[in-house]
Amino acid sequence: MSHGASTDIEAVEAANTALYDAVEHADLDALTNLWMDDGVSVVHPGWPTLTGREEVLRSYALIMANTDYVQFFLTDVDVSVHGDTALVSCTENILSGGPAEEDGSAGPLVGGLVVATNVFRRTDDGRWKVWSHHGSPVLVEREDEDDEDGLDDGDVHL
Amino acid sequence: MSHGASTDIEAVEAANTALYDAVEHADLDALTNLWMDDGVSVVHPGWPTLTGREEVLRSYALIMANTDYVQFFLTDVDVSVHGDTALVSCTENILSGGPAEEDGSAGPLVGGLVVATNVFRRTDDGRWKVWSHHGSPVLVEREDEDDEDGLDDGDVHL
Repeated sequence: MSHGASTDIEAVEAANTALYDAVEHADLDALTNLWMDDGVSVVHPGWPTLTGREEVLRSYALIMANTDYVQFFLTDVDVSVHGDTALVSCTENILSGGPAEEDGSAGPLVGGLVVATNVFRRTDDGRWKVWSHHGSPVLVEREDEDDEDGLDDGDVHL
Repeated sequence: MSHGASTDIEAVEAANTALYDAVEHADLDALTNLWMDDGVSVVHPGWPTLTGREEVLRSYALIMANTDYVQFFLTDVDVSVHGDTALVSCTENILSGGPAEEDGSAGPLVGGLVVATNVFRRTDDGRWKVWSHHGSPVLVEREDEDDEDGLDDGDVHL
């Protein structure tokens, strides 16, 4: 259930889509233009937090250099706008290409499921820019397994 | 490197600490007062995204009911304030108690490492309230292993 004026929500959704498009196209210039200058942070799935524009952009450059192919299908997109800040949560259904085979042919495709919380700020020129991206793997099964309540009781992978 | 006016940063840090104190003390009333009314979302480590105040608070009630003992040691606390919104990233060094033994004695202590991105909004009465919490397990080793760049190439746990 999205929250905010519909024009704001549309603009934020477009900025959110642009973020994933930039990664899909390995377009570091586009990505650089999408991120705010100050106080930014990123958590890629399973990674520690990286803070500061330089470190954030370097991490994307590294990911792009190590990714042969990636496509994001976004679902459960939820936008909440308060003033000049927008919070987006979404599920990234990821299809990515593994390393190329030794004979030069494309590697196998790998699927992944990541949930993301993306924070955007409206800048003085009215554009929405990325303040923070936090993506994390979904490790808890939706089906009940051993544990009746489906919780992992904080026993996260150490 | 925190960003913003020092009085704002201190107030946000206090709100962030209060969030963890409420979970440590299993104080659902305190937690309820800390969260905003509209557009909230939460991702607990390894979980899918939960949106909406009711679902968020229910998830905390469930976690509290299933946790005998938990203590958070926060490190790498980084606060960025823009207008009435604050972004906090921190590392949660978690010490939690496992299930009690059959003889009634306390269960074993378990350690955990989680990185969190917490978003706060300043309400009309000047208080900082939680808009979003996203915690995720750190799965990537800081030491280089097989992979020279330390990346997992998007091969998150499916």
